[in-house]
Amino acid sequence: MKWINYHNVLVVGLGLIGGSYAKSLKRLGYHIMAVDSNPESIQFALENKIIDEGAAENIEELVSKADCVILALYPSIAKDWVEKYQQYFKPGLPMTDVTGVKSSVVYGIQEILREDVEFISAHPMAGREVSGVKNSDDRIFRNANYIVVPTDKNTDEGISWCENLGRILGFDRISILTPEEHDNMIAYVSQLTHCIAVALMTSNDNDHLAEYTGDSFRDLTRIANINENMWTELFFMNKEPLLENMDMFINEFKRIRDMIEKEDSEGLKEKMRLSTKRRAKFDKNK
Amino acid sequence: MKWINYHNVLVVGLGLIGGSYAKSLKRLGYHIMAVDSNPESIQFALENKIIDEGAAENIEELVSKADCVILALYPSIAKDWVEKYQQYFKPGLPMTDVTGVKSSVVYGIQEILREDVEFISAHPMAGREVSGVKNSDDRIFRNANYIVVPTDKNTDEGISWCENLGRILGFDRISILTPEEHDNMIAYVSQLTHCIAVALMTSNDNDHLAEYTGDSFRDLTRIANINENMWTELFFMNKEPLLENMDMFINEFKRIRDMIEKEDSEGLKEKMRLSTKRRAKFDKNK
Repeated sequence: MKWINYHNVLVVGLGLIGGSYAKSLKRLGYHIMAVDSNPESIQFALENKIIDEGAAENIEELVSKADCVILALYPSIAKDWVEKYQQYFKPGLPMTDVTGVKSSVVYGIQEILREDVEFISAHPMAGREVSGVKNSDDRIFRNANYIVVPTDKNTDEGISWCENLGRILGFDRISILTPEEHDNMIAYVSQLTHCIAVALMTSNDNDHLAEYTGDSFRDLTRIANINENMWTELFFMNKEPLLENMDMFINEFKRIRDMIEKEDSEGLKEKMRLSTKRRAKFDKNK
Repeated sequence: MKWINYHNVLVVGLGLIGGSYAKSLKRLGYHIMAVDSNPESIQFALENKIIDEGAAENIEELVSKADCVILALYPSIAKDWVEKYQQYFKPGLPMTDVTGVKSSVVYGIQEILREDVEFISAHPMAGREVSGVKNSDDRIFRNANYIVVPTDKNTDEGISWCENLGRILGFDRISILTPEEHDNMIAYVSQLTHCIAVALMTSNDNDHLAEYTGDSFRDLTRIANINENMWTELFFMNKEPLLENMDMFINEFKRIRDMIEKEDSEGLKEKMRLSTKRRAKFDKNK
C-alpha cells in the first residue's frame, strides 16, 4: 500500500489537526479534499490553498472520489459519520483517524464498518493550545510521536499504510500500541497532566499572583488553557484509565504532603532523587 | 544609599545564585569578594574571573573589607554565619539575601543582628535546574521577578538600596511584599508546583513511557529535576503555607476527579473555562 497510490485524500473535519494534515499532504503533492459542517472553515481553507476542494453539505460526491480517508472529527461523532457515509467509499479504501482515545472509538467503528474497507487507527501526539483550521500548522508534527493503534481486524498492509502516513507527515517517532496500552499511556502522560494544570489554576483565586510567576509555574500551567469541549469528551471516553491514574497521583501527592508535615527529610529527598532520575529519561535528547 | 558607594561587595556562598550575582556585579565594575566553605568553588570563580578575591577559610579579613554583604547561603545556616562574622562588619553596612522563604529566616537574623547594620531581605525569583557556581549565569535575571521583603526593622534608605540592587542586576519587575505575603505567594507559585512535578514523576513506574511523551508532560515535569537538599529545606521552612496550598490543591483535584467519575460535563467545562481565563493572565506578555 504505497502512499503514492492514494492521490485523492479526504480529510473529514477541518480543525487544527485536520488542517495540519491537509497542509502537510498538499505540500507533498496530494489532492486534498475536505468536508466540515462549518462552511467558514471550508472557505478559509480554500482561500488559503490549504485544500483543493471542500464542502460543508452535499458531500457525497467528494466522499466517493476519495482514495483514502482521514477522520479528524470529535470522537463522539466519528462513528455516526462513518455509518452515514461509508456507502460512498471506494472499495478497498483505507481510513485512519486522529483521535486521542482509542478503546472507546476504534472497536465501535470497526464493528459497523463495511467488510471491504479497512480502518487503521492512529494518534498523532501533536497539538497547540489554540484550535481551528486557522491555527493549523504542519510543523507541529516535527519532534512529535505518532502512534499506530491496530486491532486484530487490521492487516499488515493496512498497518504499514498507516505507519507510512505518519512518516510522510514528518513525525519523529512512530510506534505501535494496542488500544488498551495506548489509553493507559495517554491517561498518564497527557490527560492526568491536563487535569493537574486545570486544578492548579482553579484551586486558588490567584489572579493577583500573576506578576510574581516564574517560568516553572508558567510551564506547568501552559496546558491549563484548554478546549473544554474536546477535553471533556476525551476524559469521559477514557474514564477508567484516567481515574486510575488520578487516584495513583493523589495517593503519591498525599504521601509527599505527609512527609513535609512530619519533616521526614530522608523520605522526601528519596522522592526527589527518584523524580530527578526518572525525569532525565524524558528529556528530548536522551 | 546609592549603589555606587558600595564598591566592595561580599558574596557569602558561591553557588548558582551567588555566582550569578557576582558575575553581574563584576560586569558593572564592582570589586567582588566571595567566601564559600568549598575551596574548589572559590578557585573556579577566581580562575574564571567571576570574582576578584575569595577565601574558603580565614575569611575575617575579606568580611571586614566589605561595603555590603549578599548572603547566598542555604537558609538553615544563614543565621549562624551572621552570628559568627557580624563582628567584622563595617558600621552601617547593608546586607541582603537571596533566600526563597522569608518568615522563618528574616525575623531570626534581624533579631540577632548588630544595631548599627541593616538586613533587608530579598528574593530573586530566578534559577536553573542545575546548581553550583559553574552553572552561574547573570542572564537568568532578565524577565524575572525580584521581591524586596522588608519588615518594620527596615529603613526607607535600606529598602531603596535593596531595590536598586535588583534594578542593576537586570531584573524586570521589582515588587515589595511582607514576609507573610511572600511566603504564601511562593508556596503557591513555586513550592506547590515543585511538589506536583515530583509526585507526577514518582506516582507511576513510568520509564517505559518516556518515548511517548509530548511537550506538555515535558514542560510540566521539567522542575521534577530538583536539588533535594535545598528544596527539602525550603519546604520545611515554609511548612504551614505550603501544606495549606497542598490541601487546597488536593481538594480541587478531587472535585475534578469526581466530576469525571460522574460525567458532570457542565461542571467540568466550567472548571476548564475558569482555568483558561485565569491562565491568560499569567502569560508573559499580558
